[in-house]
Amino acid sequence: MRLRRRAHTVRVPGFRFAGVRCGLKTRGPDVALIASDRPAVAAGVFTTNRVTAAPVQVSRRRIEGGVASAVLVNSGNANACTGAGGRRVVEASTGLAARLLGVPAERVLACSTGRIGMPIPPGVLLAGVEKAAAALSPAGFADAAHAIMTTDAFPKTAVRRLRLGGRPVTVAALGKGAGMIAPDMATLLVFVVTDARIGCGAAARALRAAVDASFNVITVDGDMSTNDTVLLLANGAAGGRAPSGPREYARFARAVADVLQEIARLVVADGEGSSKVVEVTVRGARTDADAARVARAVASSTLCKAAFAGGDPNWGRFTCAAGTAGVPVDADRTTVVIGDVTVARRGRPIAGTLPRARRHMQGRHVRIALDLGLGRGVARMLTSDLTTEYVHFNAAYTT
Amino acid sequence: MRLRRRAHTVRVPGFRFAGVRCGLKTRGPDVALIASDRPAVAAGVFTTNRVTAAPVQVSRRRIEGGVASAVLVNSGNANACTGAGGRRVVEASTGLAARLLGVPAERVLACSTGRIGMPIPPGVLLAGVEKAAAALSPAGFADAAHAIMTTDAFPKTAVRRLRLGGRPVTVAALGKGAGMIAPDMATLLVFVVTDARIGCGAAARALRAAVDASFNVITVDGDMSTNDTVLLLANGAAGGRAPSGPREYARFARAVADVLQEIARLVVADGEGSSKVVEVTVRGARTDADAARVARAVASSTLCKAAFAGGDPNWGRFTCAAGTAGVPVDADRTTVVIGDVTVARRGRPIAGTLPRARRHMQGRHVRIALDLGLGRGVARMLTSDLTTEYVHFNAAYTT
Repeated sequence: MRLRRRAHTVRVPGFRFAGVRCGLKTRGPDVALIASDRPAVAAGVFTTNRVTAAPVQVSRRRIEGGVASAVLVNSGNANACTGAGGRRVVEASTGLAARLLGVPAERVLACSTGRIGMPIPPGVLLAGVEKAAAALSPAGFADAAHAIMTTDAFPKTAVRRLRLGGRPVTVAALGKGAGMIAPDMATLLVFVVTDARIGCGAAARALRAAVDASFNVITVDGDMSTNDTVLLLANGAAGGRAPSGPREYARFARAVADVLQEIARLVVADGEGSSKVVEVTVRGARTDADAARVARAVASSTLCKAAFAGGDPNWGRFTCAAGTAGVPVDADRTTVVIGDVTVARRGRPIAGTLPRARRHMQGRHVRIALDLGLGRGVARMLTSDLTTEYVHFNAAYTT
Repeated sequence: MRLRRRAHTVRVPGFRFAGVRCGLKTRGPDVALIASDRPAVAAGVFTTNRVTAAPVQVSRRRIEGGVASAVLVNSGNANACTGAGGRRVVEASTGLAARLLGVPAERVLACSTGRIGMPIPPGVLLAGVEKAAAALSPAGFADAAHAIMTTDAFPKTAVRRLRLGGRPVTVAALGKGAGMIAPDMATLLVFVVTDARIGCGAAARALRAAVDASFNVITVDGDMSTNDTVLLLANGAAGGRAPSGPREYARFARAVADVLQEIARLVVADGEGSSKVVEVTVRGARTDADAARVARAVASSTLCKAAFAGGDPNWGRFTCAAGTAGVPVDADRTTVVIGDVTVARRGRPIAGTLPRARRHMQGRHVRIALDLGLGRGVARMLTSDLTTEYVHFNAAYTT
């Protein structure tokens, strides 16, 4: 749908950002650096793919301490399927960043996105690290958001401001990902930076819950990247006290969830390969877990996604996909609502409803709801449609 | 790849066949009838989708007795998501076929393929049943194979002859399915008819094993139809004795597996939406079950299937997809072979191999092998590529 958006120009106290070009991508900035002026509480969520990129292996280990000072990101090369050489590049580049920032190497996290299976030329990346360190600025947030893009059509940022521990704090996120275009270029990378003062356990809990409520309820092509990473750095520069009690924690967690949900929606909306955002809601399942499996089955069915692309109110196809989820579904009890139009009630089509349903489906924001009539379980998934452009791009994109 | 093939013109002693037009499809024959002149031992394997079409519900119950005299098939309408009315149509049409054939209704099985969620006009189908019963002929095998087609580009038949119990017997199969084109029109229906004399348990065992070794190792779009059905009817018209001992049984089971594998390969090859057949072999997994999960992950990854379409030897993408299978995979131990070319050994690319690998991938029969280097587990999957035509067809195909 080729949204056009600008990155936010937010400043987050105690953080500096840079986005520069070193030449790993054909054009545009390809190295980002995020640095905190003091050790920040850090939490991370990583890909569940059993094959992980070298930076994921290194960052996952380093973040165990719960503290980080910087994040080094490159686009243009995923540093995945690159063996021990790939890990050496991560150690050399984060080591250089650490020396330039005057922090221990163990406190520099790394992320990469781009082609799989190609070694990174170390000299190119190291030159980029030097350039990025020199360019660090409190005003560099948007530059960093641009430098992490690969096939993204636009930078993805989100900002929330709230009061916490008696002080105004900022929660800002920058992310990239556009799975419908070229999934192996489309690693999901998201960085949440905040000057909030928050404990290490609370930060990890808030991030995990926010990822579950955002990126874990979107599906683009069902492929998990080797590089997917979501990081949270909270440096406490706002001062004040840590959140006291569950209500203050909930406000912080809500802000983190909000920025991640905004980025997630932008990821689904992005890409030449996607013409619409589709929200699949399942109600009336026996449990929430059942509902989630059914919603995922419908949202990721190639067949349903092709129907979304065609604007085809093919409710039988949706019910059929629901049946593949491996949990109880009874076609004779399933009610299907497209937009606000109930097209089939308890398995029986309602005459004359399809033209209105088709009009809704031809829009850019499509809502499909299935009520299984079996219980009270509810779940929701965001997905995109499967267009010929998706296939064209991924078939043409060669090694 | 638009293969052109003719149906076999085989005769199977004791069986008569018909394929006629009643008007459920826009054009072409759309009702098939297969009738045995004596009660046949019958076995069936049905879809695992929790949403099943009316004929599946009826046939699954009727086949429990292990005996059938006829199979009534219509194309053009799946009779799925049609509620109690759909079941009444199955009962009326098989009831009429039973009266015309002089057998109990419980011995007539039913299958449907076509659009989901639309009631079958009962009068149209009943007229078709009368016409089909009148047209039954020992020479009608090819007519029946044509009448069950929907979006299939060609009829799919396979024949084996063997000696069993001292007599020559025929095992013939007719099937339809072309998942890459329009999966909800692309129910998999396969009927194996044989004049062999075989016990009910042995027939069921042979069919189950043959399905596991054929249709359960192909993946087209990952969607399971509400109507998928594979039936075996063995009428014993060859005479002689039932197979004595495991070697004779194995010969019979082998013939059944052979015809199903031939039909499965034709299903993968069929369709405007598919330009090639891809064989994914996984070796060196910890167990065969692990290997099967990895092979399925690679064969059904949207991303890999788009690479197949583009003829792109993107070995990192294949390793990455393997990582999503949820079983142990170590990129640093994984060897990838494309055709006969080892492009990466234990995670390291082999320089200069990609041009030859690309030439192989641009052919119509592509072989991808991954050796995980973790054990002795082996598995194989057949799949097709994901082309722009697939998406175009499924998006354009409207209710």
